[in-house]
Amino acid sequence: MRKCFNCMQSKLQCIPALREWRESDLKAILVIADGMADRPLKELDWKTPLEAARKPALNKLAKTGVCGIIDPIAPGISPGSDAATLAMLGYDALKVYSGRGALEAVGSGVEVLPGDVAFRCNFATVNKKLVVLDRRSGRIANEDAAKLAESLRKVKLRKSANVEFFFRNTVQHRAVLVIRGPKLSTAIGDSDPEQVGKKVLDMKPLDNSTEARRTAQIVNELVQEFHQILSEHPINKERAKRKLPQANMVLCRGAGIIPKITPLPELFGIKAACIAAVSLIKGVCKVAGMKVIEVKGATGTPQTDYMGKAKAAVQALKANDFVLLHVKAADVASHDGNVKQKIEIIENVDKLFSFVLKNVDLGSTFLAVTADHTTSSVTRNHEGDPVPVAITGPGVRRDDVVEFGERTCAMGGLNRIRGMDLMHVLMNLCEKTKKFGA
Amino acid sequence: MRKCFNCMQSKLQCIPALREWRESDLKAILVIADGMADRPLKELDWKTPLEAARKPALNKLAKTGVCGIIDPIAPGISPGSDAATLAMLGYDALKVYSGRGALEAVGSGVEVLPGDVAFRCNFATVNKKLVVLDRRSGRIANEDAAKLAESLRKVKLRKSANVEFFFRNTVQHRAVLVIRGPKLSTAIGDSDPEQVGKKVLDMKPLDNSTEARRTAQIVNELVQEFHQILSEHPINKERAKRKLPQANMVLCRGAGIIPKITPLPELFGIKAACIAAVSLIKGVCKVAGMKVIEVKGATGTPQTDYMGKAKAAVQALKANDFVLLHVKAADVASHDGNVKQKIEIIENVDKLFSFVLKNVDLGSTFLAVTADHTTSSVTRNHEGDPVPVAITGPGVRRDDVVEFGERTCAMGGLNRIRGMDLMHVLMNLCEKTKKFGA
Repeated sequence: MRKCFNCMQSKLQCIPALREWRESDLKAILVIADGMADRPLKELDWKTPLEAARKPALNKLAKTGVCGIIDPIAPGISPGSDAATLAMLGYDALKVYSGRGALEAVGSGVEVLPGDVAFRCNFATVNKKLVVLDRRSGRIANEDAAKLAESLRKVKLRKSANVEFFFRNTVQHRAVLVIRGPKLSTAIGDSDPEQVGKKVLDMKPLDNSTEARRTAQIVNELVQEFHQILSEHPINKERAKRKLPQANMVLCRGAGIIPKITPLPELFGIKAACIAAVSLIKGVCKVAGMKVIEVKGATGTPQTDYMGKAKAAVQALKANDFVLLHVKAADVASHDGNVKQKIEIIENVDKLFSFVLKNVDLGSTFLAVTADHTTSSVTRNHEGDPVPVAITGPGVRRDDVVEFGERTCAMGGLNRIRGMDLMHVLMNLCEKTKKFGA
Repeated sequence: MRKCFNCMQSKLQCIPALREWRESDLKAILVIADGMADRPLKELDWKTPLEAARKPALNKLAKTGVCGIIDPIAPGISPGSDAATLAMLGYDALKVYSGRGALEAVGSGVEVLPGDVAFRCNFATVNKKLVVLDRRSGRIANEDAAKLAESLRKVKLRKSANVEFFFRNTVQHRAVLVIRGPKLSTAIGDSDPEQVGKKVLDMKPLDNSTEARRTAQIVNELVQEFHQILSEHPINKERAKRKLPQANMVLCRGAGIIPKITPLPELFGIKAACIAAVSLIKGVCKVAGMKVIEVKGATGTPQTDYMGKAKAAVQALKANDFVLLHVKAADVASHDGNVKQKIEIIENVDKLFSFVLKNVDLGSTFLAVTADHTTSSVTRNHEGDPVPVAITGPGVRRDDVVEFGERTCAMGGLNRIRGMDLMHVLMNLCEKTKKFGA
């Protein structure tokens, strides 16, 4: 329950607090364009894709706002999107990040409780010697995957294991596995060799604890049972007839638990929502106590429905104080080294942002745009270079930057901050923070 | 073991990783000019010595690179060269720094094992009342010091002390003492009063632990024994005849242990080397797992062989991924308040850097220059002001800075980072970092 700064009464007991609450009814939208930041490229005459793109709306943001650069985690540290987004929501990722598996599971709509260990899984095709022939079983259709997943739920683990498990397919070959019970550990390796032609790995404990050994044993047993059921499954027999790769194995990786964090509503007294296509980001947002809004046509691909997401964000702001709008596509293009496509995507992000800019009340809304990390179109990897950020809204200390870009923003009034600072900066502007000290 | 980003195999097992490793065979040279940064001086028309110096190569670095300022430890904290260098190599000096003695000893070629307590020592001249007459025994020649040190090795400590000790002279009056045994502590004061005319101090425990009391007692006993042997030593009798100050006392200070850090080769999968004249810096680099390359004529003085060091650095880069080139001289001139000499030294550092710039493959090498701390020519002390830095190399986000200096670099694209960030920034550029998160 949010309290009055002055009398520490709950806002319902304190008239000044109630008034203050109403007067500071400020909101914020944060757009995170995944992997949008890059390095200067020879083919762009040493501009970055962001610098080369036509982006009138983002430039307007820079021009009317305060700009800076952000180290998502710390200078030189290359982050994954999950850790970076956790940081951008105000959390110290170096302390609370606890693996991808659980975030992916939560994002896929699977319940993960504290203590549960979750894995990212793939339906895969293996031969009799358990050598991987196709890590994605020919990107098996959702319908087939659903039927196979259904059949795996009947697996009974020996009673002495004293655990429950939940297995659910998500998109195509992708699935999640959650193990629930006492004395589990995330310190276990992957069964996924991540390469065709290699044998499925035994999951090994990564430390000497009883918990790690026990967890590895349980998951190995499960995977064997899964393999047996899948090998004899009618769907696979039918796939064989149709010359499709059989989904006769479940590969597991990325053991994780949900991070122990205080959700945003509790931290800042806000209602928060997120619009994201990829389940990993949805998972991060759910764990942070945000409502995930599904948008039809939001795919996480370069062909995603940019306008659909923009409209959903504007709509979501009506019922929420804070909306995170995540766009995956620029990262995808960077990993493909497709500079032309990356520029097109950035121009689409600009149009998306333009819509937001035109359709929110600028007198009471803060708008911020950043990237979760740099993805180099040359190395095709996430890099530890900082990302640009711009924030506009009532009362920001507007600076001299007139263009949104990696290098222009570095000259801005925010200077260089860390990912975990951004949310506090936004919530401070929205008057949702409490005073530290008296 | 470095792993492939894609398949998480070790680089020897994965052909793409091997290729990636080769393709990203990027290297870095970091030049640290000790104490080069300064404050604006009236006699230089309010320029700093660095701003006043002719430095075409350093300016070229700034012009083609990304610039910034660095707080070696944190804003306003004045660091010693050992702590600052430790930080610039990527370590959190506030957490891992553990005293100068052990670093100096390691740098002098004395073995220091985990748990050993090491001291920096001076041969000194005292009178019968143990009042210090000369803290350096007239900067005693190496030959005399070696013979005296030799004779001290025969000292037998009482058995109950249960320790071994190692004593070695280094340069002139300088020496190191290492104590090895159970239950030792670095929480003990110095015996060196650091001032002529004061009595040699009893080494006192700095906390209430048994370990500190025990260590102080052992070293006090040793120092007494040393004094007895030295007082009657033929070398000293001969020195008395030649009217040279007798080296009849060993002063101890700076009790330290080696810091518990993960060496750079393990952290980044790199081979690293250092070129430095002073044993303290050599010690830091050895502890960080770097190969120390000796250069004839490198003295740590203003008369050091700048070109010899530059050539050695270029040569070292052939067999290493990272080379630290440390030049002491500017700090020496600053401590002497010799502004003219400081400018000359900076111009020599510029020539050294010019040689490096012309003799490395700029398509695959990152070049960085900074200072380990500010040394004021007015206060003649290390100061906590930030230091300038510039980094050039393939794909850096070149900024508008065209001159290398304390104030010009503050306008650069790196903004303001901490010493411990620099190595991560360089290793990120060299593609030697791992992703945090997924």
